[in-house]
Amino acid sequence: MLTTYIYGAGDIRVQEVTKPTIRHSTDALIRVVRSCICGSDLHHFHNFPATPDSPKQMGHEFIGIVEEIGTDVSTINVGDFVIAPFAISCGTCGFCHEGLYTSCVSGTFWGRGEVGGAQAEYVLSPFADGTLVVVPGITEDSELLPSLLTLSDVYGTGYHAAKCAQVGPGDEVVVIGDGAVGLLAVLSAKQLGAQNIILMGSHQARTDLGREFGATHVVSERGDVGIAAVRALTQNNQGASKVLEAVGHLPAYEQALGVVRAGGVISRVGVPQYEEAPVGMGALFGRNITLTGGVAPVRAYINELLPAILNGQVNPGRVFDSTISIQDVPLGYAAMDQRRALKVMIAF
Amino acid sequence: MLTTYIYGAGDIRVQEVTKPTIRHSTDALIRVVRSCICGSDLHHFHNFPATPDSPKQMGHEFIGIVEEIGTDVSTINVGDFVIAPFAISCGTCGFCHEGLYTSCVSGTFWGRGEVGGAQAEYVLSPFADGTLVVVPGITEDSELLPSLLTLSDVYGTGYHAAKCAQVGPGDEVVVIGDGAVGLLAVLSAKQLGAQNIILMGSHQARTDLGREFGATHVVSERGDVGIAAVRALTQNNQGASKVLEAVGHLPAYEQALGVVRAGGVISRVGVPQYEEAPVGMGALFGRNITLTGGVAPVRAYINELLPAILNGQVNPGRVFDSTISIQDVPLGYAAMDQRRALKVMIAF
Repeated sequence: MLTTYIYGAGDIRVQEVTKPTIRHSTDALIRVVRSCICGSDLHHFHNFPATPDSPKQMGHEFIGIVEEIGTDVSTINVGDFVIAPFAISCGTCGFCHEGLYTSCVSGTFWGRGEVGGAQAEYVLSPFADGTLVVVPGITEDSELLPSLLTLSDVYGTGYHAAKCAQVGPGDEVVVIGDGAVGLLAVLSAKQLGAQNIILMGSHQARTDLGREFGATHVVSERGDVGIAAVRALTQNNQGASKVLEAVGHLPAYEQALGVVRAGGVISRVGVPQYEEAPVGMGALFGRNITLTGGVAPVRAYINELLPAILNGQVNPGRVFDSTISIQDVPLGYAAMDQRRALKVMIAF
Repeated sequence: MLTTYIYGAGDIRVQEVTKPTIRHSTDALIRVVRSCICGSDLHHFHNFPATPDSPKQMGHEFIGIVEEIGTDVSTINVGDFVIAPFAISCGTCGFCHEGLYTSCVSGTFWGRGEVGGAQAEYVLSPFADGTLVVVPGITEDSELLPSLLTLSDVYGTGYHAAKCAQVGPGDEVVVIGDGAVGLLAVLSAKQLGAQNIILMGSHQARTDLGREFGATHVVSERGDVGIAAVRALTQNNQGASKVLEAVGHLPAYEQALGVVRAGGVISRVGVPQYEEAPVGMGALFGRNITLTGGVAPVRAYINELLPAILNGQVNPGRVFDSTISIQDVPLGYAAMDQRRALKVMIAF
């Protein structure tokens, strides 16, 4: 079967490997129907060290059909259509019971260690019962595949931003970032009842989709000019109570500090590309700003977000503006890196 | 009248100045009955630059009797007993209406600019209606004076830590710091229903009081040893969901990172003596830790905390272990600096 490796920055290769087989009684083997490339994959694409002897398998979002199950798998059957969250979780520990699947004590991620990546024709899932989510009645030719695929990561991650910020009816929300996660944070804020949703992004095709998802305003400027433009849209120029940061670079965090209202919340879901940041009297403490968010436990949100997809009320799959074959994955990375594509889907 | 100035690090002087008079129609003149020295005053005591020509008036906590009011003061009368929160607030702006008095758009603090400090015989209060809180029926010889004085700052600040962390019934809480704020954060967590309250502090007289306030465990070690000791007291060694940080130095923040459970909250009320701190994947993001708290809008909590003081259910005034006269304020700073006193009250 074909799978995707990264050998170093900019060096993505699709290679033939042996199709995996059940190793543990709790495993399931999935034939991948759709996978995709994530904005966070681009961090690796830019920074991954050259590792000619130990390349890393890539991809952490997929949907597919169960082909084989281990003897202890009880909630999933051969032939089921499943969504795979980007985090693998046992389903039985305290964190899993609380829905914080990304902190599962036995958890891991696709493409890490012995676990294969998801930009591949087949994926062996550990802890199949605790990880995969079955969606009954979906077939491989469903029009809903793109939207269902977003539940693997980007939709749940955008939703996590909004949930951690406790977005609710009437709220004034700023979303920083017009990538797939930012746009789905807009959609999530809209679904949770936000009144004004200001999207900060400079790529018009993306911000146009953001408007369709519910953004009431778009601010394309960055830095101090962007901050002033956002504040001018908020009550008394005081900023917004809820700021969803979906980029991960330090300037986006600084942007968030600039647009958040005293007493407000900055909710981060963009993977931070920094470790230290301002949090003292001037940044957070003096104005009682709460900093929340993190690696989204998307599995916790799948059942909550599924109905609106199934009944056609929302179409988060619109973030996919390009579909390629597994062989063309390196081209897909390049397209996303060069911002020619918002998010690339891989069809099998 | 006598008032307290700081002229530089370690240089506290009590000096005779002209008694203030009403300047604005919204002012009230208060004869101070009790004032005190705050742990946060010690930051100035350690670091204040030498300013022989422009010393700063000190003190931001007091209770007293209204001696005179401006013509537009409507809710406060001459002779009223009042509590002065450490932040001055107009009472009419959006932030005041929301209870975030420390972000009042016209707000300031005692001892800043034209506003006098509270370690003084008289204090002129701007925005008397919006700032001061009347407590009917209290006289100058009340046994409750020390506890009422804690509502100016330390009790409300400890309570803010617990409220921001949403401490509730059954919670496992760690309080970092055995100063007055930390001890009253213990009391607050207890009042809000916390089950286990682990107090991190090394001064036994203080941690003993912490036990009386509700601490179920005391950990006197710091650093990695302290972190391990705290975690050993929590379920599965995973740390506590609610961590209240009442110190303000970076090692206390790092301590908080070490003892907080994934998905948990660090609520800071110790004034940060740092601006940058770790907040990235390793510190907060990867484990979905929320960072909250800030400068406490204590005025918002006075009516909530008052009944249990008035009916004798709680006695937060026990944090005062020393009482001095205004003339002895420099000795009071030294006693607190040398940790001979937990918190020094000034009686007039």
